[in-house]
Amino acid sequence: MILYGYALSSASYRVRIALALKGLPVTSVPLDLRAGEQKLERFLQINSQGLVPAMALDDGTVLTQSVAIIEYLDEINPDPPLLPRAPSQRARVRALAQAIICDVHPLNNLRVLQYLEKDLRQDKAARDAWYAHWVQLGFEALERRLVGDSATGRYCHGDAPTVADVCLVPQVFNARRFAVDLQAYPRIVGIDAACRELPEFQGAAPDRQV
Amino acid sequence: MILYGYALSSASYRVRIALALKGLPVTSVPLDLRAGEQKLERFLQINSQGLVPAMALDDGTVLTQSVAIIEYLDEINPDPPLLPRAPSQRARVRALAQAIICDVHPLNNLRVLQYLEKDLRQDKAARDAWYAHWVQLGFEALERRLVGDSATGRYCHGDAPTVADVCLVPQVFNARRFAVDLQAYPRIVGIDAACRELPEFQGAAPDRQV
Repeated sequence: MILYGYALSSASYRVRIALALKGLPVTSVPLDLRAGEQKLERFLQINSQGLVPAMALDDGTVLTQSVAIIEYLDEINPDPPLLPRAPSQRARVRALAQAIICDVHPLNNLRVLQYLEKDLRQDKAARDAWYAHWVQLGFEALERRLVGDSATGRYCHGDAPTVADVCLVPQVFNARRFAVDLQAYPRIVGIDAACRELPEFQGAAPDRQV
Repeated sequence: MILYGYALSSASYRVRIALALKGLPVTSVPLDLRAGEQKLERFLQINSQGLVPAMALDDGTVLTQSVAIIEYLDEINPDPPLLPRAPSQRARVRALAQAIICDVHPLNNLRVLQYLEKDLRQDKAARDAWYAHWVQLGFEALERRLVGDSATGRYCHGDAPTVADVCLVPQVFNARRFAVDLQAYPRIVGIDAACRELPEFQGAAPDRQV
């Protein structure tokens, strides 16, 4: 399998963690998003959306969208599971993941920050405020949900990492990179720390990519 | 089951379609998002994220996030399936859905448009341009992918509706509401029309909600 990604891309980071938790080997092909490499025709032929991550299977099939890729990995290689067994618990974990991948991350993507800067002529302070606003709104709700539910354990769901943790850790990393104050979210911070004790999360971190 | 939703919310619309395709009865509780009803304490106790949709099961469990709810419905009630069987095809359908629910819809939500207006003081023209920009970027890529792949059929994947169609139709509805020109996306427009020939999609439409 070939993973087209970018060290600092949250979505690529998620897939790297999932691959490591599954113990699956992959060939990494890094793209330089800041230089716009993902918009070059040779990559658009791999992923017409011009986004990373994209994963090419050995038969040439190309999968896109981080969580679709992660659920695929979980289906072809169920051990260790990244989703619980019971449908309502699976729904809980997927909802925690979607609260990050739909409600926080899309608003703080590089392409969105670039639109704010170039098209809407927003200065750095306004862009930082925008970034912090969506993280805080999302994390407030997530913290409330994690604290208020006995299904939360050492990780987002019980005592083994799930797709929710796989999405949480890159978002926390990103929030720190933008200097968002995380003091109000002790449970999120604690789960992030617990995850990062695991070698699979450590090896997937942006600063560990070459 | 009780579905907390809002007629014009794309995410609620998705769940309504899925419930109809599954033939599952539900009690609808509409919230007035423009009046901020989703931020009232009595709703926050149901969904701490203060977002619709939320679905209360008969045992009191509350599920959130539209696609997590839809995958739950598909797991407890597998017929008709909203995902294909083979893992790589499931990944394709989930990726098409995520290209909408992660890359288009979150940027054009009511709360984002309100932030542009109130916090960034962007006028209607700038907000409309923002809205159209993300729809066009997302639809361009989606169109390219649908056209270029023989797995596309009458619907996004083959000849039965899947979760990808369930996400596509509300997004097309929304794009039309904001007068985005869809001429460049004939395959998307065709799939949307095919879906809306089905009574399940018709009954879930915003103008059919009371």
